[in-house]
Amino acid sequence: MDTSRLETFSDGIFAFAATLLVLNVHESTGSISHGLVHAWPSYAAYAISFLTIGIIWANHHTVFSQIARVNRTFLMINVVFLMVVAFSPFSTHILAQSMRGGAEAGGVEYGITFTAMSICYAALWFYASRHGRLLREDADPRTVSGISRSFAPGSAMYALATLSSLISDYVATALFAAIAIFYVFESSIFGRGG
Amino acid sequence: MDTSRLETFSDGIFAFAATLLVLNVHESTGSISHGLVHAWPSYAAYAISFLTIGIIWANHHTVFSQIARVNRTFLMINVVFLMVVAFSPFSTHILAQSMRGGAEAGGVEYGITFTAMSICYAALWFYASRHGRLLREDADPRTVSGISRSFAPGSAMYALATLSSLISDYVATALFAAIAIFYVFESSIFGRGG
Amino acid sequence: MDTSRLETFSDGIFAFAATLLVLNVHESTGSISHGLVHAWPSYAAYAISFLTIGIIWANHHTVFSQIARVNRTFLMINVVFLMVVAFSPFSTHILAQSMRGGAEAGGVEYGITFTAMSICYAALWFYASRHGRLLREDADPRTVSGISRSFAPGSAMYALATLSSLISDYVATALFAAIAIFYVFESSIFGRGG
Amino acid sequence: MDTSRLETFSDGIFAFAATLLVLNVHESTGSISHGLVHAWPSYAAYAISFLTIGIIWANHHTVFSQIARVNRTFLMINVVFLMVVAFSPFSTHILAQSMRGGAEAGGVEYGITFTAMSICYAALWFYASRHGRLLREDADPRTVSGISRSFAPGSAMYALATLSSLISDYVATALFAAIAIFYVFESSIFGRGG
Repeated sequence: MDTSRLETFSDGIFAFAATLLVLNVHESTGSISHGLVHAWPSYAAYAISFLTIGIIWANHHTVFSQIARVNRTFLMINVVFLMVVAFSPFSTHILAQSMRGGAEAGGVEYGITFTAMSICYAALWFYASRHGRLLREDADPRTVSGISRSFAPGSAMYALATLSSLISDYVATALFAAIAIFYVFESSIFGRGG
Repeated sequence: MDTSRLETFSDGIFAFAATLLVLNVHESTGSISHGLVHAWPSYAAYAISFLTIGIIWANHHTVFSQIARVNRTFLMINVVFLMVVAFSPFSTHILAQSMRGGAEAGGVEYGITFTAMSICYAALWFYASRHGRLLREDADPRTVSGISRSFAPGSAMYALATLSSLISDYVATALFAAIAIFYVFESSIFGRGG
Repeated sequence: MDTSRLETFSDGIFAFAATLLVLNVHESTGSISHGLVHAWPSYAAYAISFLTIGIIWANHHTVFSQIARVNRTFLMINVVFLMVVAFSPFSTHILAQSMRGGAEAGGVEYGITFTAMSICYAALWFYASRHGRLLREDADPRTVSGISRSFAPGSAMYALATLSSLISDYVATALFAAIAIFYVFESSIFGRGG
Repeated sequence: MDTSRLETFSDGIFAFAATLLVLNVHESTGSISHGLVHAWPSYAAYAISFLTIGIIWANHHTVFSQIARVNRTFLMINVVFLMVVAFSPFSTHILAQSMRGGAEAGGVEYGITFTAMSICYAALWFYASRHGRLLREDADPRTVSGISRSFAPGSAMYALATLSSLISDYVATALFAAIAIFYVFESSIFGRGG
């Protein structure tokens, strides 16, 4: 089984989950007259989540450029990964509500979702690349090890940011934003060969 | 008419229906402050439905790898099948509400939807494979009979799980989860040639 | 400009509009405990609209198999056509509400939407096929005239069904269903060469 | 990295954002019985936003027909651009509410969104075309300069329309509609070579 239909399906989920994020901006600003002061956590959460999914999508392309074929186990890891991605609009909503005082522990919920996403994404990659299991014959070793280096710290960084939400949702949100921005630049590095 | 545009359209519906599931998690947890205790049926229903649609998508690929062409009747069976798939976010919502006491007979509604989905999926396959009607010249006999064997019990299993919801929505939900997990492994078997 | 990206974009709108129909089933059955008696117009409207969009999609494929290239005018007619298609989940919701007494003139609203859809679809086809403007060199004359024959009565039938909603939304809904079923069979005829 | 998967992902966002617009029509017409008099701003805002996204999609195709490859910076500009596009259903909703008196400063919010979209779109194009950075070897100079000429005034026009909303949301809405219609014809000109 080749990877093209898997990529199409995954892209559909990425694009759709990213677009659904806006519904939560919508619902959380019934108080539009209160202005930007009240609404800004919605905007911030929207931007961070959209950027994160956008980067995941961009990296997904680089990752799949190294993969020749898929098997059932890989397919099922990908389904679980997409299940977490598709869940992110809900977590984004809860984070925004939590920052405005309308819900509790939004940072924890958000952090758990994105830590899980990071773990699934790493599992997907390390399953495929271990002993070159699903890689192309002519996979570029520098790109492969670059992706591995890039994915290794992700879960730990998200877990740390999640813990920080016990102090403050604002600190956690700043860290989630920082991780997204880190990957904009980091992926420029590992994507060099892409 | 070849199968590629049909596969793209079907993949779109699978991806959208799976992603829309999250909207129901959203709406059913206005009571986020009550915590995970109240919300878990939403999470469980989300996971079971997403996993089920993910497996249907994965198997759809294996099924279509054996099909050479489509005709109008096949197209219309597929439209009805997709109509039921696209309906599943609603049934998932009702199941979660029902488990929390906010609606009645959610297990029955959910069960009927997934039994109908299973019947349509089987109809699609047996219409295409009967006397090799739409199969490729070089369809793999072992994969074909593997798919047939795999699809045969699906509708009966869902019908049984639906009946069990008359006893308890929790029993039914456990059975729906069991069927999904059964197909993760079963489809690994029939997909071996895929 | 070739037609492939246009088809992908159109398929996305068809698939997404069809899947969004379920959200209106959701919202219109807050009264799930009242059972199927109250909810059935939602289900009926969902099924009729999904089937109609499904047939439009299936025919779109046959239509585009005869078209070699697109120009700006054709592109803009298609955008307006898709604008009406994407509007249909709203009209479907209003029709269901109207049948349950929660809104007025739902049949008129629904009918206007689907009459407009039918007019746009016919405009798309007759613009492309007039003097063979955008058709393939080797377009099949029998399929071309079959499509033309099939599209000609659509707008009139929808307009008639719309008028009938002034008598009763139930009569109009029955006619909308009848038109959808008519096209299941009619399109089998013009699609024979597809 | 070639442009095909980027185009598919972008098309997905365009199609989803356009289709999601209808949800806001839905929500903003709880008062369907008040008739078209109250609801028309929803319809107008829906039509203007859908048409605008449709034109952006159509032009995106012409733009990408001139581009040979993408790099990380281009990819990230595109992600930010899509983030703004995916935000437009929310702004459309606020504009409609504002015209009906249910929210304040809807025209400003809408205008800022579409000005930002215009700036991102221009940034995307001028980044790619500057010194022919990402253009095809055989890019058509007339099409390239036509696109540049067409994109140059967009941001200024949207900024002006945004300012006009300080006078009246109705004036601003008329200008947003005028810009959309301007681009229907303008893009016919620069698209001549497409």
